[in-house]
Amino acid sequence: MPSRRRLKSVFFDIDDTLFSTSAFADTARRNAIEAMIAHGLRGKREDLLRELLEIVREFSSNYEQHFDKLLLRLGPEASRGVNPEILIAAGVVAYHETKFRELRVFDDVFEVLRDLARTPLLLGIISAGLAVKQAEKIVRLKVYEFLDPKAIFISDQIGISKPNEKLYLRACEATGVRPAEAMYVGDSLENDVAPCRRIGMTTVWHQRSGRFQSLDGIPEPDYRIRNFHELRDILVRDFGVKLPQPRSMPR
Amino acid sequence: MPSRRRLKSVFFDIDDTLFSTSAFADTARRNAIEAMIAHGLRGKREDLLRELLEIVREFSSNYEQHFDKLLLRLGPEASRGVNPEILIAAGVVAYHETKFRELRVFDDVFEVLRDLARTPLLLGIISAGLAVKQAEKIVRLKVYEFLDPKAIFISDQIGISKPNEKLYLRACEATGVRPAEAMYVGDSLENDVAPCRRIGMTTVWHQRSGRFQSLDGIPEPDYRIRNFHELRDILVRDFGVKLPQPRSMPR
Repeated sequence: MPSRRRLKSVFFDIDDTLFSTSAFADTARRNAIEAMIAHGLRGKREDLLRELLEIVREFSSNYEQHFDKLLLRLGPEASRGVNPEILIAAGVVAYHETKFRELRVFDDVFEVLRDLARTPLLLGIISAGLAVKQAEKIVRLKVYEFLDPKAIFISDQIGISKPNEKLYLRACEATGVRPAEAMYVGDSLENDVAPCRRIGMTTVWHQRSGRFQSLDGIPEPDYRIRNFHELRDILVRDFGVKLPQPRSMPR
Repeated sequence: MPSRRRLKSVFFDIDDTLFSTSAFADTARRNAIEAMIAHGLRGKREDLLRELLEIVREFSSNYEQHFDKLLLRLGPEASRGVNPEILIAAGVVAYHETKFRELRVFDDVFEVLRDLARTPLLLGIISAGLAVKQAEKIVRLKVYEFLDPKAIFISDQIGISKPNEKLYLRACEATGVRPAEAMYVGDSLENDVAPCRRIGMTTVWHQRSGRFQSLDGIPEPDYRIRNFHELRDILVRDFGVKLPQPRSMPR
């Protein structure tokens, strides 16, 4: 049995750690394109979707006017005879309704966060992105009740972004834990594992998305997990966290 | 039997004509305040709601950052120990979820628009407001399928706003009808009835909201209705529109 490290807090990444950001975005964009076609946009579904993905890549996913740009790129013929604001609104509404219906954490994430919230561990978020967008995800994912309200750190509000390790140091300082007593669970080797290793946090690489990431020049993470049940096992086995047996509960 | 006027098109206002804007906004704001309290905002529900209503009046309902301003006005004590972006996101999400669930036309509006869409009448919208907001309402109210896609006129897109009668003239010109062959259904004597009377459109005052409006200096509307069943009766009786008998259909 390995010597147990003392652990006071666990911080989590949001995107592709608590939920599948890429699967969600794909569904939402498909629904938006369908709605725009239903309201009169001309074009083949797959062509329109490909154009939209190019826009997201060129203007970033945080840009606010993807659908406006889509109409600009397609030219006037694609929206002939239809008020373009109706087409844009149809896309926006369908995207938002997808959020309303489908933005939720993985089932195992819900179960393990719920159980961890009953332990003395401080649970928090360290996330890179726009404050308004990341905060909306935390609220919509319905796991806020399991987190410490004082332990939500978003790069946009702090002025330090990933992979700068100062972001993680700031979160530890603000919550009064030493990095050696803190764990970070994230999906990126470069943005999450590397900086946390540099300051001595315990690093857990959530490999669920399965996308290739090069380990070149990146220190090996302390742990690799494919779901949060594996995280539970690590916390119980190596850190002496007392948790109830896993069970399937209706959500 | 009165001599029948020839009618080619009927244009509708959106707010407080197709749905109760004020009742909806009240529900949405109450839900937002409840959610902010549930996420840690301190204060009495009714006090917070009163403060929010003041902000809406001061900054206008189209202003984007009501909840940010609410936190500013309440001071740091009200959100002590909580990330303010979480509180704002909680309010925004609750407001949007209310839109998702509750933004719908009055039942009689749905039934009558559905039936009118089967007649040769051209059905359109003439609305004052921000294009993105008014278009979103049209999409969410789920009556777009009953309207002519070329007959959606929003002041923000045209550069002319109510009560300037040029807005209404432009809508008639663009759809190829003379004002004498067009009807407008709206809730405001000053913004809707007065300008439409000046250019010879048939004016229908939708009095459902019941709020007091002075008739001083305003020409008498051609018709007053309290719901769209009364509009149906007028169209059948005075304009010879052929419509099926009213019936209650599941929506």
